Amino acid sequence: MGNKKETQNNSIDEIIGTPFHGSTKHYAVTDKGWKVPFRKVQQQNTKIANSSETIVNPDILIYDSSGPFTDSEVEISLSQGIPEVRNWIEEYDNLNRLEKLTSEYGNSRLRDEKLNDLRFPNLRLPLKTTNGCHTQMYYAKKGIITPEMEYIAVRENSLVSDYPQHNGNSWGASIPKKITPEFVREEVAKGRAVIPANINHPELEPMIIGRNFRTKVNANIGNSVVTSSIEEEVEKSVWACRWGADTIMDLSTGANIHETREWIIRNSPVPIGTVPIYQALEKVGGKPEDLSWELFRDTLIEQAEQGVDYFTIHAGVLLRYIPLTASRLTGIVSRGGSIMAKWCLAHHKENFIYTYFAEMCEILNKYDVTISLGDGLRPGSIADANDEAQFAELETLGELTKIAWKHNVQVIIEGPGHIPMQLIKENVDKQLELTHEAPFYTLGPLTTDIAPGYDHITSAIGAAMIGWFGTSMLCYVTPKEHLGLPNKEDVKEGLMAYKIAAHAADLAKGFPAAQYRDDALSKARFEFRWEDQFNLGLDPSRAREYHDETLPAEGAKVAHFCSMCGPKFCSMKITEEIREMAKNKSISDDEVLETGMKDKANEFSEKGSSIYL
Amino acid sequence: MGNKKETQNNSIDEIIGTPFHGSTKHYAVTDKGWKVPFRKVQQQNTKIANSSETIVNPDILIYDSSGPFTDSEVEISLSQGIPEVRNWIEEYDNLNRLEKLTSEYGNSRLRDEKLNDLRFPNLRLPLKTTNGCHTQMYYAKKGIITPEMEYIAVRENSLVSDYPQHNGNSWGASIPKKITPEFVREEVAKGRAVIPANINHPELEPMIIGRNFRTKVNANIGNSVVTSSIEEEVEKSVWACRWGADTIMDLSTGANIHETREWIIRNSPVPIGTVPIYQALEKVGGKPEDLSWELFRDTLIEQAEQGVDYFTIHAGVLLRYIPLTASRLTGIVSRGGSIMAKWCLAHHKENFIYTYFAEMCEILNKYDVTISLGDGLRPGSIADANDEAQFAELETLGELTKIAWKHNVQVIIEGPGHIPMQLIKENVDKQLELTHEAPFYTLGPLTTDIAPGYDHITSAIGAAMIGWFGTSMLCYVTPKEHLGLPNKEDVKEGLMAYKIAAHAADLAKGFPAAQYRDDALSKARFEFRWEDQFNLGLDPSRAREYHDETLPAEGAKVAHFCSMCGPKFCSMKITEEIREMAKNKSISDDEVLETGMKDKANEFSEKGSSIYL
Repeated sequence: MGNKKETQNNSIDEIIGTPFHGSTKHYAVTDKGWKVPFRKVQQQNTKIANSSETIVNPDILIYDSSGPFTDSEVEISLSQGIPEVRNWIEEYDNLNRLEKLTSEYGNSRLRDEKLNDLRFPNLRLPLKTTNGCHTQMYYAKKGIITPEMEYIAVRENSLVSDYPQHNGNSWGASIPKKITPEFVREEVAKGRAVIPANINHPELEPMIIGRNFRTKVNANIGNSVVTSSIEEEVEKSVWACRWGADTIMDLSTGANIHETREWIIRNSPVPIGTVPIYQALEKVGGKPEDLSWELFRDTLIEQAEQGVDYFTIHAGVLLRYIPLTASRLTGIVSRGGSIMAKWCLAHHKENFIYTYFAEMCEILNKYDVTISLGDGLRPGSIADANDEAQFAELETLGELTKIAWKHNVQVIIEGPGHIPMQLIKENVDKQLELTHEAPFYTLGPLTTDIAPGYDHITSAIGAAMIGWFGTSMLCYVTPKEHLGLPNKEDVKEGLMAYKIAAHAADLAKGFPAAQYRDDALSKARFEFRWEDQFNLGLDPSRAREYHDETLPAEGAKVAHFCSMCGPKFCSMKITEEIREMAKNKSISDDEVLETGMKDKANEFSEKGSSIYL
Repeated sequence: MGNKKETQNNSIDEIIGTPFHGSTKHYAVTDKGWKVPFRKVQQQNTKIANSSETIVNPDILIYDSSGPFTDSEVEISLSQGIPEVRNWIEEYDNLNRLEKLTSEYGNSRLRDEKLNDLRFPNLRLPLKTTNGCHTQMYYAKKGIITPEMEYIAVRENSLVSDYPQHNGNSWGASIPKKITPEFVREEVAKGRAVIPANINHPELEPMIIGRNFRTKVNANIGNSVVTSSIEEEVEKSVWACRWGADTIMDLSTGANIHETREWIIRNSPVPIGTVPIYQALEKVGGKPEDLSWELFRDTLIEQAEQGVDYFTIHAGVLLRYIPLTASRLTGIVSRGGSIMAKWCLAHHKENFIYTYFAEMCEILNKYDVTISLGDGLRPGSIADANDEAQFAELETLGELTKIAWKHNVQVIIEGPGHIPMQLIKENVDKQLELTHEAPFYTLGPLTTDIAPGYDHITSAIGAAMIGWFGTSMLCYVTPKEHLGLPNKEDVKEGLMAYKIAAHAADLAKGFPAAQYRDDALSKARFEFRWEDQFNLGLDPSRAREYHDETLPAEGAKVAHFCSMCGPKFCSMKITEEIREMAKNKSISDDEVLETGMKDKANEFSEKGSSIYL
């Protein structure tokens, strides 16, 4: 626990039930008895120099996406799935549990005995709303605060009461000092925030995506024809939650996509997103021309009944936009976008998802699946950033947003990709305007193309900036981007870079709880509370490991110096002494400047430096 | 060469004489016969689909800081030092080679027989200007273009003739389409750029630091009481050059600082900076109170005669500013700053470097040592960013800048530190105004404090932004920041993050050669020229290694797909096909939209998809 191995590629058995070193699971219990999870860091006391007195430092509660896997009290069995959190779902109106799956494909997989060994063993029949559109947005517009909204209000605040003052510049955002259930409801009603929460995903710990809330991070996982098994993907999803993924997209394109997804959802405390066209394409043997609305429709239902919380839908790739990409340096780089483009060209018809968009909304609102409007024409290189094709599609996404909202379907808007820094803000400004303030969800963006192998960094720069400018969720990029499929260690590296970006954005936006955690860590660092510095960080075990490389002795972790400067040369120590001196002598700032400074200084020198150096 | 081991911790012998895989050393020879180094990447041809034709792609020349170590034709002996580049130095006016060292301490080290084994074996006696101030700034103001300026003009352009159009937003900068020697001279004359080039560092490949030139990166190395040997530090400096350090600061505080520095300078193709107060403090047994101007003066001369190119000088930490730090969360975190603060308090006197500043300039101009005015009161945490203490010191640095310029001493201004994103730009704006547009040189800044172990990333975000806003040089931060001393692998990780930040800044500023390299890599990626994609990157071996993890066969590196999507599912491939189709059918955009599209689409479908899928 918390040892060197933790940052390495340890197995799922080793991490299940294991919180971060120095942290414990803490639940805030609401009036109605719902348990909202936090990671709690208990701090050491501050020692007063030359005194036996100490000052108690408060416990710090950190937003926690890791689910029951970091709760040592919860018994986890992956083949059972994790415990249900949303035990209130069946109290919603007009819900029915179906007697069989609606999707043809879903049923055929269920009947296939060859899949018995692969199939998740504890399948549940799906719920469906039979009458009207009982989504989170529907309730929000009616003025009703759902349990999800109450849960989220507690979760977003981290229970911090003594927030520091804002000094943020939050552009278009207006973050309240304290987030209330009513504020959550309003933001969802306006479409400015979404709660991706399929009624068939009771294992979910509800969360919100919107620019007046904490900036969220998505991690992509998924197998391909070339690599990966179900076990590996489930392991990656548990691992991704551990390292802070707020949502996970399963982008599988290889074998047994349906079964892999079931295992992932049943073990996921975070919303799961997919790109249904990927699976649809598999069903037609990889030929985009053979796709059809009917097949796609069945795929949507198949996945909705499993509990997928949001779908990326490339409905904005219109026939007339495709030629706009011909003069690009890097054409169309979105997989979904290129599939739809090829379909449009082959049939010389308008994108069928665009054509059937309203019908699709009718389906999705029965499960409360959120739509993530995909940016199929996003730029694939710095050279193609912010071009006509990209913004033409964005305008169409705005049009579709209004249709979805009419059906009370929640919407997020996807964004690029590859953008040099000076063109990033324009993306957010245009997105807010053209898509009516729906939450923005961007992939990076990468701010340069010259660093394959380091695109978690090229893109964390863009992600932090675009988060600050008003993006609600950042889709991570791993070091393997453009080169290969990420393994577990890549997933972690990508998440660390993006947790940094999201937190830096929250700080810049003036989100009170963000500054609170920074200040706690800074203070621990300054006071040489090494353990607290490690434990309050994003990755306690790596911080400890790096420290211990040069000073492995346990004593060094209570020492008032570190390996950078050695014991006699530490600026923090000197400052502490300067401050201590000022205090002991009761010198005010003015006195230091104007009066007895010289005498006091002489006295200090005469006394020798043993105390102060 | 270029194998997996290259990204690991390989020894100095393995990397000497070894360019990056796929790159060779190229010298542009000027009219006067000076050889300006570049890293040359020879690209593969572009294959035309369904044709035997190919299109030739140009060689790409990349700015190269790695020195002779990546030239397989140069024989390197570390104990000889690397070959002299600036063979023109002795032609400068009023130069004398001294008959003995000026510094007392330098002489005592030379006489100490116990150091015989440690001492660099091929010492040279130093040069000194005997009359007037013959610095690069002096010549620039006189309207004289020095060899250094000519060399730099060639170096900054990368010989690219067909630059893409600017789309940058360069704030206060005004980057010309082509950098001429006269432009270099003007910028140095105005103090907007510096050429750190001590006349005792002939091994130096001249470079420039200024916001109308490429953004530069500094790497800190140096031993401490706790760790490191001379060999390790020389190895780190060679290694840092390899990975793109434009300058290196030797921050040693441990044993044999003098000897370590000599070894480093004699083997350094890049400017070396130091913080002389660190060594001065060692000389008085670590007691700041015992420091004196005379001792400091001797240290400056000692180091100037070895060839140090720039000194960080904490002359702006004034007595009256110290109380401004008392209410900070993290006081004074600059080592130099806290040393001077303690001296001021102990003596109740004004900072002696401030008092003797003009006299110091008189010394430094005799060797053309550039002053880097240290930010001793920089914030050490997000909470303390942009406070009164910080900006009070900055104002004093502006006053000192004018004094230095009067003595024709070149000046750069150091900046923080820890700043949340929304407060970064104010730092550059104030710096340009208060210090008269002298080049800004910042440490990061870190945009959050919550990620010990990942501060190369927390700070690369801030570094990219502050570079864009007009900072001329970025001091790197390694993953070990706040935790321990960086080893070789940390030095590389820090440099990669900062090369990304600097390049992203150059792109955003509209530096033409930056966009050129990005576009070349993007095009290679889009055309599945895997080798070119690797070779044009910052770290060819890591890119190759990551690719090969999933598809190790050599054939996969000419394949038109990758492991992310597999052979049938690649968006880039589909786009290529769409474009190819459009071209073969000679359809213009308008036609696609308005006329025969449907027929052609049918025809395409009927023909089957074997060509296109």
